[in-house]
Amino acid sequence: MPELRRDPIVGRWVIIATDRARRPTDYAHPGSAAVHGLCPFCPGHEDKTPGEVYVTGRPLGAPANGPGWRLRVVPNRFPALKIEGDLDRKGEGMYDLMNGIGAHEVVIEGPEHGRLMRELAEADLTEVLFAFKARMLDLRNDQRFRYILLFKNQGAPAGASLEHPHSQLIALPVTPIQVQDEIDGARRHYDHRERCIYCDMVSQERKDRSRLVHENEEFVVFAPWAPRSPFETWIVPKRHESNFEAEPKERLGRCAQALRTTLRRLAAALGDPPYNFIIHSNPLRDAPTPSYHWHIEVMPALTQVAGFEWGSGFHINPVPPEEAAEFLRKVSG
Amino acid sequence: MPELRRDPIVGRWVIIATDRARRPTDYAHPGSAAVHGLCPFCPGHEDKTPGEVYVTGRPLGAPANGPGWRLRVVPNRFPALKIEGDLDRKGEGMYDLMNGIGAHEVVIEGPEHGRLMRELAEADLTEVLFAFKARMLDLRNDQRFRYILLFKNQGAPAGASLEHPHSQLIALPVTPIQVQDEIDGARRHYDHRERCIYCDMVSQERKDRSRLVHENEEFVVFAPWAPRSPFETWIVPKRHESNFEAEPKERLGRCAQALRTTLRRLAAALGDPPYNFIIHSNPLRDAPTPSYHWHIEVMPALTQVAGFEWGSGFHINPVPPEEAAEFLRKVSG
Repeated sequence: MPELRRDPIVGRWVIIATDRARRPTDYAHPGSAAVHGLCPFCPGHEDKTPGEVYVTGRPLGAPANGPGWRLRVVPNRFPALKIEGDLDRKGEGMYDLMNGIGAHEVVIEGPEHGRLMRELAEADLTEVLFAFKARMLDLRNDQRFRYILLFKNQGAPAGASLEHPHSQLIALPVTPIQVQDEIDGARRHYDHRERCIYCDMVSQERKDRSRLVHENEEFVVFAPWAPRSPFETWIVPKRHESNFEAEPKERLGRCAQALRTTLRRLAAALGDPPYNFIIHSNPLRDAPTPSYHWHIEVMPALTQVAGFEWGSGFHINPVPPEEAAEFLRKVSG
Repeated sequence: MPELRRDPIVGRWVIIATDRARRPTDYAHPGSAAVHGLCPFCPGHEDKTPGEVYVTGRPLGAPANGPGWRLRVVPNRFPALKIEGDLDRKGEGMYDLMNGIGAHEVVIEGPEHGRLMRELAEADLTEVLFAFKARMLDLRNDQRFRYILLFKNQGAPAGASLEHPHSQLIALPVTPIQVQDEIDGARRHYDHRERCIYCDMVSQERKDRSRLVHENEEFVVFAPWAPRSPFETWIVPKRHESNFEAEPKERLGRCAQALRTTLRRLAAALGDPPYNFIIHSNPLRDAPTPSYHWHIEVMPALTQVAGFEWGSGFHINPVPPEEAAEFLRKVSG
């Protein structure tokens, strides 16, 4: 059983794998895990993954876990956390730990092995976002979970170990510290001004326009004021909403349009860079709130993030966001 | 002039280079900047660096910036921050910025191009730590600075762009957020218990021994309870002290012994991995405090740190610290 351990100083939780399946020496020379041969996410190989928990496109009456699907969500075969068991919170002297309970699922975005997320039709990308929402709504019924992280690693340098386009979801019994820091910061702004800081930001970015990349009726895409890395790009709903899973399908469609053009612009500008995106949303057990605002953070993996950066939280960004945004505005989305 | 910009939500500062010396497209395909040819840090090439601000070993009366030195500290030729100017704090709508004022120096650890830090004699490594202290004591006189980050990137995957062994120092007008988070967390522990959390940790680790790697009279080396990455290792003074620069030379000598054996053990265990270390110390303008405790965090660069990790603060570590420590105890230091 993996463990969730809490750093006693800053309160950050980490997942410690304790299965001893691999020896420490296995980490001496890590490579970018290029996987060759059979792809477990391709149609016809459905038996190479755990059984699907969500699916679209398969004709009515066709058997589960066979071909004919447009999108599949399956449990991760090598999950970071285990779904069965109790949290069993305990202390070890001054330290805190609990069992590594959680869900780790893979959203297989389409049947085509070589079709990248940015190449999906807008309607298909909407289906992906809707699958995110459907899985969140299902998993939030499990009272052990406090947070669901939705994210995508595209390309080996961004941490993807399989090529077939997919996103991931991790349901956790704790809220990740970076999300909590955002919630706390946004709350301080709200307490002071009775306004959502993200709404204020959307308003300033739309007026200023120097960091604006794109907008449609519902979403705005911009380079944030203090980006940690070159070409970091945020996608933020214009209308206040704290919870991603509360968005109706029509707005997810507009989100898909904004995400698609963002990924296409980054690809055109930077030559198909590896990237990560992550959805930040209100924690599952918190009431919807006027102070926090869900959003997507897209980060191309262009620069090395070394221990120095995470030992200090201090980032040096050689590309001003105004330049990045100008560049992204000019290329075709 | 580079800019320091503050994220309005979480309060993190980033340095934005604004000199436009490079174009955004230059970041499309970053490589590990392997530098060939002339090494600016080797003896005889002293004119390839800015003039030295600290030096050891050169015979009395020998001219500055010539050969004969054992250790040199020079300003970084491509500094992230500029030393001249005023902070000129200002707002831009809801955002905060100031001029990127700071010092960025390089500690050239020895004249030999191929001699790694772990291969230095203990006395020579003590000189390196003493140089850190000397530069801190000098730079803290500049009232614009609030924090001095001391760190080392070893190997290209850990962010080193030059091979010749060197460490770096960045003096900043702000305290890095990760350090502030530690200070705040340690303060909460102190307010509650009137004990330093690091002292408590040293005590528990020495008693428990499962995560202990090494100790001498003055320092303890251990794998932290909740490490962010495999083989993360901390070096902590046994006697409480908040400020690195307050340590007398004898204790820096014992620190050098602990650091040297740590680096040698990591090299033996993991086949000379790239690594980072960073010194966390009390901010320059804060009074010495019973609640915070300086220390060194060493992180081998074994796993990919992708945007996902820094978008969530959430880490999955496949090597339990007890296993890493056991492994490091067994190899020769």
